[in-house]
Amino acid sequence: MIWPSHGSNPRYLYEAMGLSLPREYVDFSANINPMGPPPDLKEKWADFYQEINVYPDPYAVKLKERIAKKEQISMESILIGNGGAELITLAARMLTGKKVVIIQPGFSEYEKTCRANKCEIFYHQLHEPDFELNIVELRSSLVEADALFLCNPNNPTGLEYPESTVISIIEECEKQNCLVILDEAFYDFLVKYDSFIPYINRFSNLIIIRSMTKMFAIPGIRLGYLAAQPEIITELSQLQSHWSTNTIALLAGELCIQNESFIKETQNYIFNERTRLFDFCKKEDFVVTASTVNFYLLRDPYLKDQFALFEFLLHSGIIPRHTFNFPGLEGRWLRFAIKSYEENNQLMEVLALWRQHHHSSL
Amino acid sequence: MIWPSHGSNPRYLYEAMGLSLPREYVDFSANINPMGPPPDLKEKWADFYQEINVYPDPYAVKLKERIAKKEQISMESILIGNGGAELITLAARMLTGKKVVIIQPGFSEYEKTCRANKCEIFYHQLHEPDFELNIVELRSSLVEADALFLCNPNNPTGLEYPESTVISIIEECEKQNCLVILDEAFYDFLVKYDSFIPYINRFSNLIIIRSMTKMFAIPGIRLGYLAAQPEIITELSQLQSHWSTNTIALLAGELCIQNESFIKETQNYIFNERTRLFDFCKKEDFVVTASTVNFYLLRDPYLKDQFALFEFLLHSGIIPRHTFNFPGLEGRWLRFAIKSYEENNQLMEVLALWRQHHHSSL
Repeated sequence: MIWPSHGSNPRYLYEAMGLSLPREYVDFSANINPMGPPPDLKEKWADFYQEINVYPDPYAVKLKERIAKKEQISMESILIGNGGAELITLAARMLTGKKVVIIQPGFSEYEKTCRANKCEIFYHQLHEPDFELNIVELRSSLVEADALFLCNPNNPTGLEYPESTVISIIEECEKQNCLVILDEAFYDFLVKYDSFIPYINRFSNLIIIRSMTKMFAIPGIRLGYLAAQPEIITELSQLQSHWSTNTIALLAGELCIQNESFIKETQNYIFNERTRLFDFCKKEDFVVTASTVNFYLLRDPYLKDQFALFEFLLHSGIIPRHTFNFPGLEGRWLRFAIKSYEENNQLMEVLALWRQHHHSSL
Repeated sequence: MIWPSHGSNPRYLYEAMGLSLPREYVDFSANINPMGPPPDLKEKWADFYQEINVYPDPYAVKLKERIAKKEQISMESILIGNGGAELITLAARMLTGKKVVIIQPGFSEYEKTCRANKCEIFYHQLHEPDFELNIVELRSSLVEADALFLCNPNNPTGLEYPESTVISIIEECEKQNCLVILDEAFYDFLVKYDSFIPYINRFSNLIIIRSMTKMFAIPGIRLGYLAAQPEIITELSQLQSHWSTNTIALLAGELCIQNESFIKETQNYIFNERTRLFDFCKKEDFVVTASTVNFYLLRDPYLKDQFALFEFLLHSGIIPRHTFNFPGLEGRWLRFAIKSYEENNQLMEVLALWRQHHHSSL
């Protein structure tokens, strides 16, 4: 079977499974803020129409100014992109033909874009059930590497690495002239977080990529940014296509970036829902990863692979993210976004129903 | 002086000139449909908001279906892109390190993106005042070339090459295994046009790039497409970043692509305005190129370079596109978009004022 390479767009998943998409379903496969976009974005939407016939500012000055202020870095250290995916693609483009290490399981775009750019790809495999990142083991994977892709908190596990581990990795890589591409697509869902961004001034080998589409629920309009020392920004921007980030994304970004109360509210909502879901899973004997963000891996420990549960969920209109294309998972887990209170209830109802007919004593 | 690399975003031009942007100005530097976007786009705009929290369809199936139907080609021959600029960048990426020939004066992105991809770049220079494309001369430029960038109708001149010339060039290139990247960004402003798209089935070396942002006045949301044989589409799509074309652009494209009456109305409007402007220029002794689209080059034959006129216009709030970065023009012409009736009147008033004080007998 050819599995869709990503979550979202569930019709491709149902097509691959030979099923028809049910009339009503809940898509747990895309890790988007369940609160939706900030309310003031809806209020401004009509005004944005006036800007569609104007070319985007190719230097995105206004948005860069706001990010620079928020993150306390210079505008020359920022590159705005057409979603995190474009920034990952640009980094891979810069690494054409080089030796890259990808921590697995990880976001599949690292490998896809590095492969398109003829990189020599090596996996550093993390292992179930805890997916711990051991710096000593990683060191041996890094020999002669030109770059390391590190996602923190990690997608698909939802696990956060200790700050000291990340710093050690960056230091280790610096010694051997190896770039660290630190993908922080989900950092803003963490209740407690100390920014790594100030470290770009200390480490010339550090590239940080951030998405703005997850927290602000705007994957449809694409927006992300990258922080690194100015030399790297210049090199990447020369590879980027002109007017890459659209005007609507820039306007939305300028509006959203400083909405701290919305971010705080989201973090609390996710925290509460995650606690509720994890309590249920413990009670009903489902294993979950110790996620600190807005998605998690789940498996039924009474099953060898999770295919039967996956099918049952799809038939019930609950759409998880399959994990067949994550090296080290190969379908043994399912990934779920944390969605709204009502939607999470629906998930729990269906899982409880499954548990009634599938448990250890059967 | 460092000139902005493109029209639009006039504040960068005024900054480069050390001038302050006037409170009221008319931007003639961006070649966008003066009628604005099709009216039904405005009607649907509020509905589009519902889609911003959904990932774009990475395969853009609905839009491809409509383009395939309109152009009578297979969906496998189409790549949707984040504006024509992204598609040009992808083509240049595919040509990394190769020998490319660029017809000059031409759209500056060809050279910029080819340079970023370390291509060996050669110019085939067209000459004032007619900028004719001579196939015999071009043949000698094409020796050992891997690709030719050809813009038709050409930007910045607005001139259309005869169909037989374009076909001869594609045939000539096919013989020597040279790709032709035919940029048709402005083809839909031509009152009379026979599509080159069916030729992709005959010529495996033909890539056609089309913009949807000019005709439908949506440069802010970015949209274009590329047509070529499926092998080329596959290769380019692997280099493209995931979710590259945003959801709003896809929805707008699906709505606009078959709006033939809007296209027809625009063509007539542009034709009438162009006739009016060219009659004025003839009467007032300004030289223009024989453009058949929505922009043209203009110069005052009584000036050696056009800088004094350029400054006069900027001071009057009329913003032309400078031509300092077009090889073969180097500032000796100014480019103007054809804008609305009222705006074109403003331009003619200011040009008439200039002419009162600058003519042969002075």
